Amino acid sequence: MLREGERLDAVNENLRLIQKTDGLTYGTDAFLLSAYPPPEPRGRAVELGAGTGIVSLLCAARGQYAHIDAIEVQPEFAELAARNAALNGQAERVTVRCADLRTLKSADLGGEVDAVLANPPYMRADTGKLNRSDAKAIARHELHGGIDDFCAAAARLLRWGGRFVCVWRPDRLIDLIAAMRTHGLEPKRMTAVHADASTPASMVLIDARRGGAPSLALTAPLLLYRDPPSVTPRVMTEAAAKIYETGQFTL
Amino acid sequence: MLREGERLDAVNENLRLIQKTDGLTYGTDAFLLSAYPPPEPRGRAVELGAGTGIVSLLCAARGQYAHIDAIEVQPEFAELAARNAALNGQAERVTVRCADLRTLKSADLGGEVDAVLANPPYMRADTGKLNRSDAKAIARHELHGGIDDFCAAAARLLRWGGRFVCVWRPDRLIDLIAAMRTHGLEPKRMTAVHADASTPASMVLIDARRGGAPSLALTAPLLLYRDPPSVTPRVMTEAAAKIYETGQFTL
Repeated sequence: MLREGERLDAVNENLRLIQKTDGLTYGTDAFLLSAYPPPEPRGRAVELGAGTGIVSLLCAARGQYAHIDAIEVQPEFAELAARNAALNGQAERVTVRCADLRTLKSADLGGEVDAVLANPPYMRADTGKLNRSDAKAIARHELHGGIDDFCAAAARLLRWGGRFVCVWRPDRLIDLIAAMRTHGLEPKRMTAVHADASTPASMVLIDARRGGAPSLALTAPLLLYRDPPSVTPRVMTEAAAKIYETGQFTL
Repeated sequence: MLREGERLDAVNENLRLIQKTDGLTYGTDAFLLSAYPPPEPRGRAVELGAGTGIVSLLCAARGQYAHIDAIEVQPEFAELAARNAALNGQAERVTVRCADLRTLKSADLGGEVDAVLANPPYMRADTGKLNRSDAKAIARHELHGGIDDFCAAAARLLRWGGRFVCVWRPDRLIDLIAAMRTHGLEPKRMTAVHADASTPASMVLIDARRGGAPSLALTAPLLLYRDPPSVTPRVMTEAAAKIYETGQFTL
């Protein structure tokens, strides 16, 4: 099952995941993203930039959507995501497609969908040194589509009123919001994620609706740990533990 | 000193304020706004929509700027703000001008300024029943300039790199951000204000720079109270108490 340069991890009781030893490994952002949108058990969803498939598989394991198309542009990751879906008995619920989101149309997926999820690369293509053939660089940098392309794709794929749900970095939040507005996706709910109450936000979750009226709810902050870093061991907050354990977002 | 329909309040040890009994009275937003920008003791500032002058006078009492032009479109409030400046011995530091921010130019103020502060009306002119001659309605609704006019005025009045600092409602945050970008004001620092850690944000503070490069810091949340409302008496957090007592914003 495992090939060279791969390893197998148990994400939780229900989910095992093959990852590449030289690729990005999943992090908190995957758990947050999969837990943020309200469940639509009869809905059809798309994940843009699926990588190993972790977000789609976390959603699938909980029955969050009836079906998920996981889109991944790098063939070796699309192939890996498909193996991960099979490994977890989710090959029917999660269809992995190797495709470029910049040219993807709803007709390619059999019609418009109810939700689009994405953990887009957050570094501009022009920042820092990078190897353009490196899988980590592709996952982190806007090489195969920037945030504007992600928003354009979401707007093309979503039905009217459908949700585009994103996890993103605060330092580029304004770029994301501007791109959403450009493509008719209105942010309706936003949550800042902080390590603890004394720390700047490290991530932001946004739930936007295609064609939604302007009106944002900025929820209570999601604090991951109860105390500042000086207090050890670090104890997770109830809200964070619930996201990891049950995928329930309770803020 | 007091006229009919007026009352005198002691805001703190250093500041007394005449308010209209039928007008909006100052609230937490005034303290937050005046404390949010870093002090520029040699700088020149403008406050757009000054009302009774509370924000300009809080800044003046702390020597936050060398000079503040307080702009107010309603003559009876401009006159009141000028009396409040005199009452507190700040008539030289705070110049109240009765003017419409939609036509105000930097030349009217002797050149571009270092900072613009505003607590703009947050309700659209088309929302709810309202009496257009009512002072409270004018302060709350976009009757004499909407958020786009405030951003346009700030961009006209500010020097390159100058700050536009706003307190605003989360539900219209996206409109504010879009208007800022339209007028070349880049949000650089943002703070969500929550009653406590379990409550959605009730206000947002934004510090934008004219011509700034995109890069936002989303600070630790400002929590006003230590505990949820069920715990009484409500005890202020240290961060909130410091803002009220010393005007220091420590997040």
